[in-house]
Amino acid sequence: MTQPDAAEGARAYSLDRGSVFHSWSAQRSLSPLVIAGGEGSTVWDYDGNRYLDMSSQLVYTNLGHQHPAVIEAIKRQADRLVTVAPAHANLARGEAAERILARAGSIFSKVFFTNGGADANENAIRLARLSTGRDKVLSTYRSYHGNTGSAIAATGDWRRVPNEYARSHVHFFGPFLYRSEFWSDSVEQECERALHHLERVIQAEGPASIAAILLETVPGTAGVIVPPPGYLPGVRALADKYGIVLILDEVMAGFGRTGECFAFQGFDVVPDLITFAKGVNSGYVPAGGVVLSEAIASAFDDRVFPGGLTYSGHPLAMAAIVATIDAMEHEGVVEHARMLGDEFIGPGLAALQEQHRLIGEVRGLGVFWALDLVVDRETREPVSPTIVGRLKDELMQRGVLPFTADNRIHVVPPCTMSPADVARCLAMLDEAFTAVEAE
Amino acid sequence: MTQPDAAEGARAYSLDRGSVFHSWSAQRSLSPLVIAGGEGSTVWDYDGNRYLDMSSQLVYTNLGHQHPAVIEAIKRQADRLVTVAPAHANLARGEAAERILARAGSIFSKVFFTNGGADANENAIRLARLSTGRDKVLSTYRSYHGNTGSAIAATGDWRRVPNEYARSHVHFFGPFLYRSEFWSDSVEQECERALHHLERVIQAEGPASIAAILLETVPGTAGVIVPPPGYLPGVRALADKYGIVLILDEVMAGFGRTGECFAFQGFDVVPDLITFAKGVNSGYVPAGGVVLSEAIASAFDDRVFPGGLTYSGHPLAMAAIVATIDAMEHEGVVEHARMLGDEFIGPGLAALQEQHRLIGEVRGLGVFWALDLVVDRETREPVSPTIVGRLKDELMQRGVLPFTADNRIHVVPPCTMSPADVARCLAMLDEAFTAVEAE
Repeated sequence: MTQPDAAEGARAYSLDRGSVFHSWSAQRSLSPLVIAGGEGSTVWDYDGNRYLDMSSQLVYTNLGHQHPAVIEAIKRQADRLVTVAPAHANLARGEAAERILARAGSIFSKVFFTNGGADANENAIRLARLSTGRDKVLSTYRSYHGNTGSAIAATGDWRRVPNEYARSHVHFFGPFLYRSEFWSDSVEQECERALHHLERVIQAEGPASIAAILLETVPGTAGVIVPPPGYLPGVRALADKYGIVLILDEVMAGFGRTGECFAFQGFDVVPDLITFAKGVNSGYVPAGGVVLSEAIASAFDDRVFPGGLTYSGHPLAMAAIVATIDAMEHEGVVEHARMLGDEFIGPGLAALQEQHRLIGEVRGLGVFWALDLVVDRETREPVSPTIVGRLKDELMQRGVLPFTADNRIHVVPPCTMSPADVARCLAMLDEAFTAVEAE
Repeated sequence: MTQPDAAEGARAYSLDRGSVFHSWSAQRSLSPLVIAGGEGSTVWDYDGNRYLDMSSQLVYTNLGHQHPAVIEAIKRQADRLVTVAPAHANLARGEAAERILARAGSIFSKVFFTNGGADANENAIRLARLSTGRDKVLSTYRSYHGNTGSAIAATGDWRRVPNEYARSHVHFFGPFLYRSEFWSDSVEQECERALHHLERVIQAEGPASIAAILLETVPGTAGVIVPPPGYLPGVRALADKYGIVLILDEVMAGFGRTGECFAFQGFDVVPDLITFAKGVNSGYVPAGGVVLSEAIASAFDDRVFPGGLTYSGHPLAMAAIVATIDAMEHEGVVEHARMLGDEFIGPGLAALQEQHRLIGEVRGLGVFWALDLVVDRETREPVSPTIVGRLKDELMQRGVLPFTADNRIHVVPPCTMSPADVARCLAMLDEAFTAVEAE
């Protein structure tokens, strides 16, 4: 564990502000928190402040910080063989692939490893385009699929607009009853209308031109929009009807986040391709990938797959995957995440909603929740960024590190957080809302 | 060090063939070498076979395998703080950025970190497009810039063709006297004509539509095509004349490969953006990035930069960068690479060329060389893949791991290889050519 050291913290801050260019930001006004260390559900800075990590950083430290078995596996692999080119085989890579396939289901036969979620989606799109001979990719407006050329064009949120480099991406609306695009009154109606809308888009775009439907199983950054029970099976049926590849993006939703190993396993659907990253090794070493159905994998038995990258199946990342999946199994992490959602976070957030008029809707499952904040519960008008910023400040002052997006606070702690720490997060949320609502 | 264990090797091979989907390949016919361990310039398999790594894997282990100071730094960082989100600051990231900037030159002010070379080029293209308000990206046919949407469309080689997802990429011919596209008789004429050709492409595309010229400083996978002395300064002048951003891709060429810290430093040119990966930390942990000139960085002081990724500035990767750059400096690695090229590899390959009719041209510098193999020295007709495959087999049987591409063998060992090991590589090349030419 790192001992806080204010001088080193000042140096880290100054180097960052002087030399590091930051993501998704104007650079001048940033004042990043300098993180000195972490353990379990807690991180700390150089001034001795400790924070409960209700963000899992960027929703990826599913095992929490510094899990000893994963750290040990990384160090052991570093001593043994830190890197090898993708063309050569190595044991850690095969073991990682085997563990992922064992959990994905019997229709899947191969794993293609990448550096993260964006290039996982890039390669899933490539596989879908090449295996179908079709071009278009359908994805939702409320989505995020990564920052590279095709992944950012597949993304539906604002980050796509200045970045539309890639052709043949078409966007549609997914089901979202709280802010319905379909004038629905019930979850059943929202589901039915969303499927009707998708089929009409498919027909209007021309089914024979569509390679893939790419969906986050549970759209994450867009607001933890849990799909209605029949939606994903309905999408699967449409994909089958029109010969379209179904890609489920589990970069954020996978590996315990929803209380399932893969989120789709809770929604009565099986995709053709699964993309993953983040939780697969809690982000301890950059890694992502695509799980391929046998039908798609075998299309490249005798045909060259024209994709690849230097660090595909990097041993250090693979060792972290093996250790993470093993730790999840040995420690019942997925079941713990589900229990936290069912017994603590869900009921706790529902109770907060009763107390605080700013909370328009509570959505989620497992350790994957959003508070949709509104000025007025009738109109559902989103609160301003100022309100979200104030809530964030109040939470930070109380030692809770939140994830915020648009008009929302996401409650996305590690899968391993203790019920006591969840209770502390909930209590601090209560205090923060009380403070801001009093203004 | 790993002790070879044939049973574990068989298990690694079987897991790989059963579960791992490989890059740039048809899957059925693969039989990858299983690498059990490595040290310095050597790797070994589970059967006790040792190989001199004349490939640096995928031209990235510039420090060789398992450099103890870098391994130690990775383990220390793993114990301290293995991961943190990009929005938060951490010391390793600032220290990595500071070291890179100190070597890049005074016009550069910030570093944006990515997971590898492809997303480095993606983000450099994004920066160029947004800072100029223009759209098109010019790059050469003989190039490789990565496998994601825009990076693969910028790529010029065959890997682009099935992957042209992104719009507004235009390709032109760079200078390459041995296979001139400009009917040149001399290096001076090739340089002059290549610059004329580029200016005509710029004019014909419309200068006001062109955001960036993206070039590998020394095109690598395309054949280690060292640019003539005046070419890059000439490109710089054209970029300035037409208000175009010059991006130099140093993913393969950077960090010692050419005998310079950055390859452009040997060519009398300074780009606006530098992209890097591979050698920056010898690929010990996946990492890449963009070095930004102050002019471009400051364009995003008050404007949101719409790009980012979960593992940007990952502490483990950053610690490996810091240790790699420090080791390069303390051990004189860049100077050693230059010396190897000047005193051993260059003269040695020239001597081989005199002995072996298959070697049409020897090109390179530092530890970055290609043998351009031909059926006939007059027509310069490339040899078939069969000949290259035979040479590869002969080299592997003699304990040398080569990098091959198209009709070429690339001699791209670690920057740290000893002169004795270089001599052994050269001797084995001599034997392999003798064997294949006798057939």
